[in-house]
Amino acid sequence: MNTSARQLHLNAFLYGTGHHEASWRLPQAEPELNLDFNHILKIVQTAEKGLMDSVFLADGYVGRSNKLEPFTELAALASRTKHIGLIATVGTTYNDPFHVARKFASLDHISKGRAGWNIVTGAGSAAHNFGREEHPEHSLRYEEADEFVDVVKKLWDSWEDDAVRNDKVAGQLIDKNKVHTIDHQGKYYSVQGPLNIARPPQGYPVLVQAGSSEAGKEFAAKIAEVIFTAHQSIGSAQQFYADVKSRLFKYGRSPDELKILPGISPIIAETESEARDIEEALFNFIDKEGAVARLSERLGIDLTDHPLDSPLPIHRLRETKEVNGNKSRHQLILDLINEERLTLKQLISRLGGARGHYTFTGTPLQLADVIETWFLNGAADGFNVMPQIYPDGLEVFVDQVIPELQNRGLFRNSYEGNTLRDRFGLRRPQNSLSYRQISSITNTQNI
Amino acid sequence: MNTSARQLHLNAFLYGTGHHEASWRLPQAEPELNLDFNHILKIVQTAEKGLMDSVFLADGYVGRSNKLEPFTELAALASRTKHIGLIATVGTTYNDPFHVARKFASLDHISKGRAGWNIVTGAGSAAHNFGREEHPEHSLRYEEADEFVDVVKKLWDSWEDDAVRNDKVAGQLIDKNKVHTIDHQGKYYSVQGPLNIARPPQGYPVLVQAGSSEAGKEFAAKIAEVIFTAHQSIGSAQQFYADVKSRLFKYGRSPDELKILPGISPIIAETESEARDIEEALFNFIDKEGAVARLSERLGIDLTDHPLDSPLPIHRLRETKEVNGNKSRHQLILDLINEERLTLKQLISRLGGARGHYTFTGTPLQLADVIETWFLNGAADGFNVMPQIYPDGLEVFVDQVIPELQNRGLFRNSYEGNTLRDRFGLRRPQNSLSYRQISSITNTQNI
Repeated sequence: MNTSARQLHLNAFLYGTGHHEASWRLPQAEPELNLDFNHILKIVQTAEKGLMDSVFLADGYVGRSNKLEPFTELAALASRTKHIGLIATVGTTYNDPFHVARKFASLDHISKGRAGWNIVTGAGSAAHNFGREEHPEHSLRYEEADEFVDVVKKLWDSWEDDAVRNDKVAGQLIDKNKVHTIDHQGKYYSVQGPLNIARPPQGYPVLVQAGSSEAGKEFAAKIAEVIFTAHQSIGSAQQFYADVKSRLFKYGRSPDELKILPGISPIIAETESEARDIEEALFNFIDKEGAVARLSERLGIDLTDHPLDSPLPIHRLRETKEVNGNKSRHQLILDLINEERLTLKQLISRLGGARGHYTFTGTPLQLADVIETWFLNGAADGFNVMPQIYPDGLEVFVDQVIPELQNRGLFRNSYEGNTLRDRFGLRRPQNSLSYRQISSITNTQNI
Repeated sequence: MNTSARQLHLNAFLYGTGHHEASWRLPQAEPELNLDFNHILKIVQTAEKGLMDSVFLADGYVGRSNKLEPFTELAALASRTKHIGLIATVGTTYNDPFHVARKFASLDHISKGRAGWNIVTGAGSAAHNFGREEHPEHSLRYEEADEFVDVVKKLWDSWEDDAVRNDKVAGQLIDKNKVHTIDHQGKYYSVQGPLNIARPPQGYPVLVQAGSSEAGKEFAAKIAEVIFTAHQSIGSAQQFYADVKSRLFKYGRSPDELKILPGISPIIAETESEARDIEEALFNFIDKEGAVARLSERLGIDLTDHPLDSPLPIHRLRETKEVNGNKSRHQLILDLINEERLTLKQLISRLGGARGHYTFTGTPLQLADVIETWFLNGAADGFNVMPQIYPDGLEVFVDQVIPELQNRGLFRNSYEGNTLRDRFGLRRPQNSLSYRQISSITNTQNI
């Protein structure tokens, strides 16, 4: 048994009937329950039973998908769970810092310190749903996001930690000298404040990030405390891990202050051959025409008449620099085609599992081996667990993989601490000192 | 026993330690639990035990108050309640129709049809928290709100009721021909759609409105299904009731399609003199300086040196037409001063109870009499119940007033139906027909 003190962090990425795009067509799948709260709750309770750090919901504003809005869903989950962290994706490009600061502060209060914010700039354009002419360019979106997060933090800090008094005798509910305007006047936002809710229990909800482009990595190194990322090999994950961790120093941060969680998207069964059968069944359910159409759009060439068993024409594909969306995911697909010389069929199968995340097909022990190997060899601080089939895949993971990881001394045997920061081993951020300085200057003048 | 089929509708307006501004200073008050979800949940469970139609949360973006964001709070309550309606205030002026449509659709799905939206334009200016130069003028805000609601309804209708198929054999999750863009291009909003969630169980969540100005009444007559309103006398309430109901006809609506719920803010005790003692205790806890400062600001004159026992100088007060905020509430205060010749102390006491809503001090039977009188004499379809003290005031209301109303045949003895529309006796709105017409034209062409 490995007695290393360093422990894995495990997040369950919720995703309807599963991350495999055809999972909903399996006989046991219940896509009609995708909006059913009690069904979702049962899945989250499974993750909590497994002592996982958190559950996570992605988001987007376009397309004919049929999903609950993640923040609303997590608020409903907050009152039905006790320990597990609740990470919601909320984009910056089409939102107001005041609303976002307020909602996350509320979720953090309701959950008693279990909120996390996955900060995205909006990978797909939603301009047409928000009265805008066009989706801002990639680097501009990160610049905006940087200021957005800055404003949100200031709003969370606009209440000093001891601003709420509830002093009945003095008739003082709030010490108004400890609640401050922020008077932010920036390039993109102008916000006076203060917020109308006390500072969140965690100071700030845990800040999560999932972009892995150059701009994304820099943003993560500066701001994020947890990062979700996609890699097709341990080598790629190790390179990313070393790269991002090395960027922290210049922001005055230590490597421990950012946890890197690559996605892992498993199909698990008692034997490897059973798992392969499930994989094959899932592949057969894929809508090939739809998959080819989506790939054509992403890669910038028409693949409609491309033979399924023939490799892809590398040199005709759109380059990453031409993409104003998820740049890192585009590069990952180009690398796959380049390095593994995949046929169209193989690529569809690989992406069908989890849209570019690392897929795994095998037994619980084999999966525990992969997790241990990545974790102990500088590729991961934990994993973003993305079962290809929900709820079954998560149940098997919790019942068979987690106990194995516990036996190996890699994962907690009980929840300790109360907040999501406690789970991830992150400290509670102090309130910005500037306000206190203003207070003390005022006090001096009063003497 | 009155056997009239017409039944009262009762909403509980949640408000921290109570609607009386000094309620938090009572010995039994626990203001430190204002952000404590389990404390709030207990109050809502009391309302549900009392078979009340709904609970309601107001909202605002300014000031140093310390409250949970209402929508987030209601989402957390949705998963812990079964029958009671959940009405959240969300303002139009500083929001996007796409976000609002999506969040309410999600809440309606999570609660299985118990969501209600209280549409406000933002009574206090929050421009400085949202990067705007100034708060739009009153009538402009209603014009904007009108288009906002129109867009939100179109988004809810962008999915036909039978668009979700889940047909595993055909590989069809959603019938994309039944999910439509809305292509809205209006004066204030430009939104393409469709929404990314199926039509809400109720079609539209129940639409609630609370402004009683001329523009507010017209907006309510056109759009609202429930209206919260403030009146200091049955006469004023009767006039308002007749006025608003008579406006419905020109929008092709019947009087039954809009329920009018005046606020009633009680202090209830076993005897009237006990109730008066509580009222006096509460008055003594009011921060007089703060109250005078707020009144001075509202009325546009400095009342700092005005004697408490002297009537107010009617002709020096700001007229309603000069106000760009809550016009109807301003007029109500002017009427109070005018008609009852109140002293400054009396006015502070009257407004301290519930900011201008009808206050009541007495026994459960006396309160049931008031409710019955208003209800049977064309002043109300029910009440927005606003206990001056929470949770005690609601507990007494549920344990002693509601059974009396049931005995008189005025209030339900059990929940019937499932949705908030069922509670209020409102029909489920059909999807806009235009889409179906387009579909049938297409079908004809295909023949």
